[in-house]
Amino acid sequence: MISVAILGGSGYTGKYLVKFCNQHPQIDEYTIYANSSSGKSIFDVFPDLVNDIENKFIKNVSELDLFHDVYFLALPHGESLKYVPKIIAAGKKVIDLGADFRLDDYDVFLKTYELDHPAEELLKNKNYGLAEQNNNYDFNLIANPGCYPTAALLSSIPAAKKYSENIQSITTVAYSGISGAGKKLDKSLLFSENYNSVKAYSVGTHRHEIEIEQELNKFGNKINYSLTTHLLPVFSGIYSTTIIHLDKNISQEEIDDEYNAEYGSSQFIRIRETPPELKWVIGTNFCDMNVKTLGNKIIITAAIDNLIKGASGQAMQNMNKLFGWEESLGIKSNKEVFQNV
Amino acid sequence: MISVAILGGSGYTGKYLVKFCNQHPQIDEYTIYANSSSGKSIFDVFPDLVNDIENKFIKNVSELDLFHDVYFLALPHGESLKYVPKIIAAGKKVIDLGADFRLDDYDVFLKTYELDHPAEELLKNKNYGLAEQNNNYDFNLIANPGCYPTAALLSSIPAAKKYSENIQSITTVAYSGISGAGKKLDKSLLFSENYNSVKAYSVGTHRHEIEIEQELNKFGNKINYSLTTHLLPVFSGIYSTTIIHLDKNISQEEIDDEYNAEYGSSQFIRIRETPPELKWVIGTNFCDMNVKTLGNKIIITAAIDNLIKGASGQAMQNMNKLFGWEESLGIKSNKEVFQNV
Amino acid sequence: MISVAILGGSGYTGKYLVKFCNQHPQIDEYTIYANSSSGKSIFDVFPDLVNDIENKFIKNVSELDLFHDVYFLALPHGESLKYVPKIIAAGKKVIDLGADFRLDDYDVFLKTYELDHPAEELLKNKNYGLAEQNNNYDFNLIANPGCYPTAALLSSIPAAKKYSENIQSITTVAYSGISGAGKKLDKSLLFSENYNSVKAYSVGTHRHEIEIEQELNKFGNKINYSLTTHLLPVFSGIYSTTIIHLDKNISQEEIDDEYNAEYGSSQFIRIRETPPELKWVIGTNFCDMNVKTLGNKIIITAAIDNLIKGASGQAMQNMNKLFGWEESLGIKSNKEVFQNV
Amino acid sequence: MISVAILGGSGYTGKYLVKFCNQHPQIDEYTIYANSSSGKSIFDVFPDLVNDIENKFIKNVSELDLFHDVYFLALPHGESLKYVPKIIAAGKKVIDLGADFRLDDYDVFLKTYELDHPAEELLKNKNYGLAEQNNNYDFNLIANPGCYPTAALLSSIPAAKKYSENIQSITTVAYSGISGAGKKLDKSLLFSENYNSVKAYSVGTHRHEIEIEQELNKFGNKINYSLTTHLLPVFSGIYSTTIIHLDKNISQEEIDDEYNAEYGSSQFIRIRETPPELKWVIGTNFCDMNVKTLGNKIIITAAIDNLIKGASGQAMQNMNKLFGWEESLGIKSNKEVFQNV
Repeated sequence: MISVAILGGSGYTGKYLVKFCNQHPQIDEYTIYANSSSGKSIFDVFPDLVNDIENKFIKNVSELDLFHDVYFLALPHGESLKYVPKIIAAGKKVIDLGADFRLDDYDVFLKTYELDHPAEELLKNKNYGLAEQNNNYDFNLIANPGCYPTAALLSSIPAAKKYSENIQSITTVAYSGISGAGKKLDKSLLFSENYNSVKAYSVGTHRHEIEIEQELNKFGNKINYSLTTHLLPVFSGIYSTTIIHLDKNISQEEIDDEYNAEYGSSQFIRIRETPPELKWVIGTNFCDMNVKTLGNKIIITAAIDNLIKGASGQAMQNMNKLFGWEESLGIKSNKEVFQNV
Repeated sequence: MISVAILGGSGYTGKYLVKFCNQHPQIDEYTIYANSSSGKSIFDVFPDLVNDIENKFIKNVSELDLFHDVYFLALPHGESLKYVPKIIAAGKKVIDLGADFRLDDYDVFLKTYELDHPAEELLKNKNYGLAEQNNNYDFNLIANPGCYPTAALLSSIPAAKKYSENIQSITTVAYSGISGAGKKLDKSLLFSENYNSVKAYSVGTHRHEIEIEQELNKFGNKINYSLTTHLLPVFSGIYSTTIIHLDKNISQEEIDDEYNAEYGSSQFIRIRETPPELKWVIGTNFCDMNVKTLGNKIIITAAIDNLIKGASGQAMQNMNKLFGWEESLGIKSNKEVFQNV
Repeated sequence: MISVAILGGSGYTGKYLVKFCNQHPQIDEYTIYANSSSGKSIFDVFPDLVNDIENKFIKNVSELDLFHDVYFLALPHGESLKYVPKIIAAGKKVIDLGADFRLDDYDVFLKTYELDHPAEELLKNKNYGLAEQNNNYDFNLIANPGCYPTAALLSSIPAAKKYSENIQSITTVAYSGISGAGKKLDKSLLFSENYNSVKAYSVGTHRHEIEIEQELNKFGNKINYSLTTHLLPVFSGIYSTTIIHLDKNISQEEIDDEYNAEYGSSQFIRIRETPPELKWVIGTNFCDMNVKTLGNKIIITAAIDNLIKGASGQAMQNMNKLFGWEESLGIKSNKEVFQNV
Repeated sequence: MISVAILGGSGYTGKYLVKFCNQHPQIDEYTIYANSSSGKSIFDVFPDLVNDIENKFIKNVSELDLFHDVYFLALPHGESLKYVPKIIAAGKKVIDLGADFRLDDYDVFLKTYELDHPAEELLKNKNYGLAEQNNNYDFNLIANPGCYPTAALLSSIPAAKKYSENIQSITTVAYSGISGAGKKLDKSLLFSENYNSVKAYSVGTHRHEIEIEQELNKFGNKINYSLTTHLLPVFSGIYSTTIIHLDKNISQEEIDDEYNAEYGSSQFIRIRETPPELKWVIGTNFCDMNVKTLGNKIIITAAIDNLIKGASGQAMQNMNKLFGWEESLGIKSNKEVFQNV
């Protein structure tokens, strides 16, 4: 049984971390640290959790203890940098849900996030935690993937592996629920501005594009990649459509074999015979996916919950894999999980 | 042909004022005044109006000219107080969409809005502009009704007139689209906080309840009234359900006769045989209404667009009545309206 | 450990029954029976349950076995009548989520549902399963309350108990998500007809009004009750606003004491200091409630998930109470529940 | 002044045809023909139009008169085939909003729609009415483009014209409001199935893909095109994202010049400096568009109302161009339009 710290537990992703910690059979204690919410209780911040979990007070991050076994960081970009080095130095495990350690290269980080990085060596000494594609949990630091990269990379890596030499371009067009932007007080996030609407944003400048390219390029040639992101008028969920152009035709059977080989035994990726519906995955850690070939094109549609598979659920899955536990502990809640522990 | 000033033209109601002024056949010039948006153009503030209307710059209210014929004020509560007295003193007409002149009594105003009122005499020397129930346009100042009062009063006044002696209570439960709260940067107005949700608010303390009581009490006995307001997860629209308890049974025929007598010739109130659907009135100045009796109860369901019939559309209708023009000028846009002018 | 049958397991409420049965620690076997879906598997009907629960085939109701311990019936009105008598005759327990056994009186049933009732004696020999108000589980047949009655009765019974002599009227105005109408192929249930809209329906004729009156009248005087129901453009959830007129004034403290005495120890009713938000209860078996007095009026706002607390969750809670188990088994899923069994 | 016939006037697009005809200054008479709605009045079918337009009865298509000047056909695929030849033979003008005449080639039509085409010569003797790209109105038959093709072709034709030799692929990912599927009674169109969800459909098999390819290929090389379509949980609107891969880099300035040259003087296409918001175009005939270059890629985001610019509005615009009238007659409703006629 372990002790867990959650830093930044009062946002939308923080809430799921709290819920998952609360029901995780290997966690016997967890502490929430935050800034503006410190001094409040969980029930103050998340009234829907009353009677559902045990209440506790939120501590101030300035009082951060270093005795916890695992630290989940759900902080704004640039904030994790302040805490991760000393937690790692104390020999503890970190799963960072922010972007501070996702990129491998210091210069790319600097250019992309316009921030200095005081722990350059940790950029190398970490695992990029795309759970179904990461088999190495050999560092104490896990950079949890961004929400769009989770959907886009799970969709495209099997093809990138197999057709590395043949790929001409990979194009992802993705739509995210508004919760992806957090609880910021910004006119563009008001209900009245988003209801009955859609808009593309950060065209050609979304930082997740750099992150996806970095990972795709680990499979060979430099891939001609583009990501176009949109706001979808729902609370949570990402729907991503990835079109891969090859320099040759392939058959549906061949591509099915490839994706089934990659994900057939995965409990959180569900290969579908038709394009998934976003609601199938809302509230879950599943990534649902359909793969279709059209001559020299592959079209992959994928759906995840941005707050779970794209953030807190995958973070928990990464913790499970880091400790060598069954990867669904705390994330799925049916009786088999609890009775088998 | 007249000249119009719009004060506070950059909010959701302001936009409709701009659109209606633009297509009103008797308005040949209108000027927009605002605070934070001054210096910007209409197209900066309302990008959807590009190519739809003629662009113009927004002036600062500090430069307010007094030569316009009519002034529409769409300002936060307490702000109209600063401008109305001098406009009235200049002999011009004012249609105030805010609450500063809706109440008749100084002490009630003070208690309700917790503001001093520097123009107490204007509280008396105004018309309360509930268009279908107001037949006197004998002052230069019109207090445009609140959005909830528009729906609730149009629903209940015919019954209050006829059954004044028999009413035991009138109860309105109303739901409003989020635009009713404006564009304030408040966590409670974020998309992620309102999507897929509903909540009651200001239970027992909504200022519109005082306004409705004031008007109902003009028809006789002091009426036992209550208004309960809710946020509905749509952009615009109010759906109000009013239950009137009488001390005697009445027939459907009798009540139908009463409402038809009141509204049968009204072009903006549509008496329906079934409860209205909110979407029937969105984007229009209509109030759709169904009236049903059940023994000693009358149940009236009514739907309006809070930004139009509940604000800018009714304001324009009031201007038309004030000038003795056909009441739909500028609000309805079909060719008959334009060809008949 | 028990065996469970679900009749009509392919609708929106059926899905929750399947999920709850699957995670209930005292259920080791459950069988799904249906008509049109028989022969299909759970995963065919509910693709979102793949990998989440164990798949199984749906049997035809014509093959209904009588060896199960408990039968949940989620069938259209009039259908339960065909099965309940023989299941009860076999000595088994029935929890009927439909309306066939909710009314106590044969004549009232006949008039309300326009159906003959072949098991009149069972109308008396059943418990009306409003879980927090029903303390007798002395029959094998439980009529699970309707969704609106669950919200309206939980809201009003504490006041009806205490102020029976003083109540002049009780008025409920309630809004329900569209799932309340099921999966029928009806134009009025299309997305395009309901998006961005609201409508009242069955004004003065909703059968749940009769059901609520029946239960309220058990606390003394015949209560002057009315229910007005509306469609809310969300998938699930009921928001109900109940206004009680008394013939005397009462204090907030007095009413708070009464509701706290009734529900303070209930784990599924959460008394709130502000009106609840619908999203707090979606996906849960909670009923959140706020009670406010205004002179001689009490205004109670309440929120439930119509498919859970208003149907399948309460059904499961009733089963737990019928067997004397902890009432949250299978409905809440955190580790405490599973580890304590 | 002309007489107009609307065939199939009781659907979502039909309603806009009725509204536009009603306010068009050159139409003095219009008649609505339908099948299942015949005998009903406009107000029966569209209750929101009461008091807004003049009511009239809907005739049965079997009584179709051939004396009207223009026929708008808003019929299911395959139905226009029955009427168009005889209307054309009578020397009248036809604007077909369906798909029966959009494709140029008989064999392609046969393969795509799996229907015989009894008027093969009319496939050639028609204009494809993409209003801003079609300069020839030399036939009496106009095939009004599909909703997706309108957005995708307006987005990509300027680039296809200029870079015909350099285009490697054009990829459109588009999302449409549910009204695009009409009022069919199909489980997949229920509110409860679409709320809070998204899904791709007809991946690789959407007929609009063929239509877009046909038009793009008129500008030179056979273009490697793909369209992926999705259902968006709103009533109306299409948001399309088109990525064009070139074999060379181009500058933002160059592409801006091209699109401004094409559309700078168009009143219905608004080139935007940021990606458009869908709500800017809902209820209008505008197509809002943003064009961005990234090295050798061009990303074009575009928004239209599928029922207006993607159907009835463009149909009216086509009629105006066919008669040589100002192209916005009947579609824009401000006073300038009416006063200038």
